[in-house]
Order: sequence, then C-alpha cells, then structure tokens
Amino acid sequence: MSPSLIASVTDFGHDDPFVGILKGVVLGISPSARWIDLTHAVPPGDIRQAALAIWQSAAYLPAGSILLAVVDPGVGAGRRAIALAWDHLLAVGPDNGLFSYLATARPPRQVIEILPDRIDPPQPVSRTFHGRDVFAVAAARLAAGWPIERLGEPVSSIVPLASPRLESDSAHRTLTGEVIHVDHFGNALTSIGALQAAGERLQLEPWLAQLPPASYPAPGLYVVWAKTRIPFVATYADVAIGAPLAYIGSSGLLEIGVNRGRADEALGVRLDDRVQLCYKG
Amino acid sequence: MSPSLIASVTDFGHDDPFVGILKGVVLGISPSARWIDLTHAVPPGDIRQAALAIWQSAAYLPAGSILLAVVDPGVGAGRRAIALAWDHLLAVGPDNGLFSYLATARPPRQVIEILPDRIDPPQPVSRTFHGRDVFAVAAARLAAGWPIERLGEPVSSIVPLASPRLESDSAHRTLTGEVIHVDHFGNALTSIGALQAAGERLQLEPWLAQLPPASYPAPGLYVVWAKTRIPFVATYADVAIGAPLAYIGSSGLLEIGVNRGRADEALGVRLDDRVQLCYKG
Amino acid sequence: MSPSLIASVTDFGHDDPFVGILKGVVLGISPSARWIDLTHAVPPGDIRQAALAIWQSAAYLPAGSILLAVVDPGVGAGRRAIALAWDHLLAVGPDNGLFSYLATARPPRQVIEILPDRIDPPQPVSRTFHGRDVFAVAAARLAAGWPIERLGEPVSSIVPLASPRLESDSAHRTLTGEVIHVDHFGNALTSIGALQAAGERLQLEPWLAQLPPASYPAPGLYVVWAKTRIPFVATYADVAIGAPLAYIGSSGLLEIGVNRGRADEALGVRLDDRVQLCYKG
Repeated sequence: MSPSLIASVTDFGHDDPFVGILKGVVLGISPSARWIDLTHAVPPGDIRQAALAIWQSAAYLPAGSILLAVVDPGVGAGRRAIALAWDHLLAVGPDNGLFSYLATARPPRQVIEILPDRIDPPQPVSRTFHGRDVFAVAAARLAAGWPIERLGEPVSSIVPLASPRLESDSAHRTLTGEVIHVDHFGNALTSIGALQAAGERLQLEPWLAQLPPASYPAPGLYVVWAKTRIPFVATYADVAIGAPLAYIGSSGLLEIGVNRGRADEALGVRLDDRVQLCYKG
Repeated sequence: MSPSLIASVTDFGHDDPFVGILKGVVLGISPSARWIDLTHAVPPGDIRQAALAIWQSAAYLPAGSILLAVVDPGVGAGRRAIALAWDHLLAVGPDNGLFSYLATARPPRQVIEILPDRIDPPQPVSRTFHGRDVFAVAAARLAAGWPIERLGEPVSSIVPLASPRLESDSAHRTLTGEVIHVDHFGNALTSIGALQAAGERLQLEPWLAQLPPASYPAPGLYVVWAKTRIPFVATYADVAIGAPLAYIGSSGLLEIGVNRGRADEALGVRLDDRVQLCYKG
Repeated sequence: MSPSLIASVTDFGHDDPFVGILKGVVLGISPSARWIDLTHAVPPGDIRQAALAIWQSAAYLPAGSILLAVVDPGVGAGRRAIALAWDHLLAVGPDNGLFSYLATARPPRQVIEILPDRIDPPQPVSRTFHGRDVFAVAAARLAAGWPIERLGEPVSSIVPLASPRLESDSAHRTLTGEVIHVDHFGNALTSIGALQAAGERLQLEPWLAQLPPASYPAPGLYVVWAKTRIPFVATYADVAIGAPLAYIGSSGLLEIGVNRGRADEALGVRLDDRVQLCYKG
C-alpha cells in the first residue's frame, strides 16, 4: 500500500515555521506520510479563496489523499472541527465554509465532528493554533489508518458559503458572473463555468448547449467586462501579444487574460468584477 | 526504523534554488531522508529571528529529527561550524547564536565543532555557501547514521545571544518585556513567558504564581503597550472584532493581537516595543 | 533502488495551488517519487532566469534525478515539449530555451520530443496548463521507470538562448561580462566564469591563465562596475562591513556583493549591467 498523502491549504504564509510545525506533528504520529503543499498564501482569514484552492486542487490529488485545510479566523470561538469523506478523498479542517465549494460540486458521503478528546492531542490544546493541536493530529490519525468515525460524531451538514454570482438571461442570451480569483499570472478566474469539476466541459444554459462541444470557442460567443468586448478564444497565442482574451482555463472556468501580460495590471480586472458571456449567433 | 528527518531553517528565501540545492545534497548522501521546511524567510542575516523560529519549532519535531539551520552572515570568516545533540534532537549550523535560545531552554548534552575534512564534503568547499558545502553534508551524514562525534571535536560552549528584555518589579507587580517577533498574521510575540518550552505554563514571578493556573487569564491581570491598557484574555473571540487583546499564544509567550485584524497595522506594534504585564488584584 | 527524485523549477509562484497540483499528478502516477522544489519564483515567463536556476542546481541533484521545468509563455501555441537525458540526469519541459545553459555546459546525450498521446495524459489536455497535463505526467512516467524513448520521437537539437555577454580584450587584459542575476541576498552574479559547471575553476583567458590557480584572488586582479573599482577577494569578510567586493561565488561565477549588505540596494547593481575583470599585474 502507498503511504498516506496529506495535502495542505492554509493562510499561514512562509514567514513563520507554522507549516513546518504542522508537518512535524503529522510525521511524529504517522512517520511514513507524504506531504503536498497546495498553498499557504491564502490571504489571512479568507475562507472563499481557500475554498476555491481546495476545489481547484481536489481532482488532481491521488486517491486516498487527506486534505488538511486550516484557515481559521474563528479559532477558539466554538466553531466545529470537522472531517469529511468522499470516495477518493478525506479532509479535516474548521467548519466555516472551507469545504463548501468542493462539497457542492461533489457531496461528501460522510461528515464527522472532530471531538478533540477522541484524537488524543498534545496537552494543553492551545486556544489559538488548532491547526497544530487539533487538525494536524486528526489528519495524522487518518494517515495512520484510523477510520474517520473514530475522530468524533456524525453530523448532517456543514457551514455553506454563498455561491459566487452566476445568472442566466435567456432572452438576451447572456450569462452574468463575477471574478472569483486573480492568479499569480494576473489571470482573472470567473464564476462562469459554475464551479464544475475541473476537466468537465463548461456548463452553459440551454440556449448555448445547442452548440456542439467541438465548437467552443464558437463564432458569436464573446465576453464583456467593464463595457469592453473581449474575444473568446482557445489559448493565449490566439490573440496578439499584449491583447486581452477570454478562454476556458485549466480549472474549467472562464478566465480573462492578456497574452504574455497580466490582466490585472493591463486591464485593471479586480476580484468581484462583473463578467458576461454573450451569444449573438 | 523511520527514515531520518531533516528540518531546515534558513534565510535563503524562495527566489533562488538555494534550499532545493541543500535538499539535493542531503538526498544525494542520504536518499531516504525526509525533509521539513520550517522557514526560509528569516530576514537575511537575522540570527535572533532564526533562533526564535528554532526554539518555537523544536518541541514539535519528531524524536530523532535533525535541525539544519543556516543563517550565516559570517561565512568564510572563521566562525565555527557546530553540531549539537539533545536527547530527542540533533542540530547543525554555524556557531553564531542560532541555537542559543533553544540551548538556554534545554541545554544540549553534547556540542561538536564540525571539522570539514571529517565529513568528506565536495571539493572545493566554497567560501560563501557553507550551507551547501558543509552543513547539508554534515546533516546528511547524521541522517545516514553517523554518530555525532564523527563530525569533529567536542567543544564546551556555544556563542550566546543576549536574552530578550524581561524584568520584574515586585513592588509595582509588573513584568516588563519587549516584542521579539511579529508573525504572519500581524500578532506581536513578546519576551514575557521567558522563552519557556512551548506548552508550559507562563512562568511568572512569585507575586503572580500565587494565582492558581486555572485562573489565567485572571481578573486584575492586564497588559500595557504604548501607554494603552490591553485586556488579557484567552483567545481572539473574547474581544470585539477589531479590538486589541493580549493572550498566551501557541508558543507559550504573551502576544498582542487584534481580533480578525493585524496588531502591527491596527495598533502599530513593532519589534523591540516595550510591553508590560501588570497585576492589580 | 532509491525512489526516483523529481526536482522542479517553475514560474508558478506560491499564491496558487499550481505546484501542489503538479506534485499531486506526479504522485498519482508514481507514488514513491521524491520531490525537490528548486524554485517557483522565476519571474513569470522569464526563460533566462529559469535556465540559470536549472544550470546552477543540476550539479547538486542526486544521480538519476528528473528535472521538471515549466516556464511556458508559449503554452498552447505549438512549441515542442521535450525530454532530455544526460548520464546522471533527465529533464522534461517546453523547448523554449529553458535547458539551453545546461546543455551548453553539458550536452545531453539524447533529446526526445514528447508526444502527448504516448504518455497517456488525463483527458482533455488543457490549452493553458501543460505543466499539469503534459510535463508532470511525462516526469512521472520517467519516475515510474519508463525509458525516455517511450515518451516520443528523437530530435536533433533544442531551442537555444543567446549566451550572456562575455568578451575578452587581450591587449588591455580585460574580460567584459554582464550581470545575469541578482540573488535573494542582493548579490549580483555575472557572466564572467562563462557558465562553467559549478565547482570548476574560473575559466579565464590565456593572459590570465598564467597565474597559478592558488593565486586567485591575486594581486593585480580587480573588477570594474559603473566606473567603480571593486576589490577582488575571496569572501565577504575580506572587506570592511558595508564595503563592496567581487569574488567567485558558489556557482563558480564572478559576483559583486557588499559585506553584510546588499549590492543591489547599496550600489545599485542591476540585471544586464556591464562588469569588467581587469588585470594589471
């Protein structure tokens, strides 16, 4: 059997030894566990950005991986600690919405409230660093082979996040969404694509679904941002260097970019900006 | 037996392949070694910040771990290279104070001056990157099972760092310390708590020790920073959103924070600022 | 046999889960592979900086390592995907110059154009993230033991980068080069040293080669940058604190630094600045 794999998303940054301490706790309990750093640069306390990174990554983790997600502005204030099970993935973290996008796309088959006294954490448990004292311990127990039920008691729901904006107007044949993330390259990811599992085809409205899949991008489809019409193409090089483009990015979402440039700097695209996909076929 | 684990603290940053090169050297010598990045974002040459990260992390590393610490402004200038042994931990690095805080809290049982010709480093040894050419090699030798004595010759002391400020005034029942670190979340860690091993109860003066442990935080205890009185509570949510608080952080030190905010930005707390813990019981 | 080791250079940064996704894809295919992050902070699309990091790191990777290099501004636009083999190293990445410096120093014994249908990537292959869908898969196949030939078809050359400036003037006994990188510590690496394999002695012109190796640094040798004469010494501590120095850095290149300071900030040294090594013996 392959060793267990723990994949971590946090807002801990890289300036302090916080992530290394998580890994130390995990390896102290489960010495053969493997580790993936997904990202630790979530803006402090930004649950939505973390939820997006979790959703974006999950499909690319090996079967049996354990997500250890800690963005926890409510630490010490009574929010639940949870563990979730899907067929091919486990996860632990605070119940504050972190797993909401992933759970909407792929409902978990089991959710457990982690009860700290069940997982035998180091004593005393701190009031401010449950990543170290609760979540890393719980993830390590799973990595060591504990069944998820042993961590605590079943619960029937998790805290949801509001879905990003996504509205269809059949009369005008437009989909209206918003920018939900600006990535390291300055590309703007939008809610259009409806947070489907990566790799799936863009889920569009009936009025667009008549187009055969092979026709994306298709004549008559274009994108509007800030009253600017942006061509909907397949990849960066389909437009001139420095020109804007809209395309289906690697997570299956509609993105706005600039060929060999940054959409955030060149165009001024920002988080929460409205974006429309239009069809005048 | 579990594979050896190397945990690294450096000021190498992430812009260059320096850390990866260390890991390459280690795995070339000891292919099954595991690796933890504690932090590589120590400000260049800042021995005190590195010493704090080492002290903060050590208690959470699995037994048998090897600390590889390289913050080395005096490279090539004759400072000693050392290896240290505790019961549950080994360490290698320059003898410039890096291990001083940890050694004060937990004196090592053995210190060895590393003699480069004993460890068979690649030739020639550079004059500017002993992390690669000396310390990574020494750590890898330990990971490969060498006894620490084989690295060189015993020495009887290590270079100390001045302790952070910590003064008690029994008459006025105050402890005066200073800010020793501002973390990724903008929380200010202070010297109050006296760099005790994490998880131990705050070590206070006799006039405070009369309070039973369960009473921390206790009525009558409060913190003063910049003439501002700050409530001493258990966790962030014990004060209003945006309000300042003092609390015992996850390393066992008194910290100043802001609930769902940043103490450095909201209050202006800075490194070396004076902080007082006061008791008017 | 040791598990295969993948060493990665990208421009993905740490803000998004891109690097973790690469690692997830690799471990899904080759679960026992080990991983080294060389650097992910290459400026977006900067092939020359990535080529330098690859060249700088290669000599320190264990035999049998697989370089996974993804700086890919031309993704989706028809540039080739390649795999390269040296006696002790394999590499995969886009054929855009990334491997040019390393291949100039050590010509590969084999170059293969990766044909995506040979490596059985996930479907559909994205148009914008071949790091995930092509290169990580190819690296994982090599880690799983595939011979490199199985990835595609042989090719006879790779895309070159222009060499950095390096000119010799025997009459005036000067070598003229340029700054090719400014590192995390503010040290300026130059092209003088001619991108020789790290650890080799500085390759100089005949007029300098008469000096015996042991005499570097030698009387009469000095460096000129921006009309300023800078002493050529062995290491930082050979000049006063705050003073500039030139020295052979850990990659075998002539560097300009400042003892306990930053050459970029203190002197204003910048990428592409002209630097001269002069001999008035």
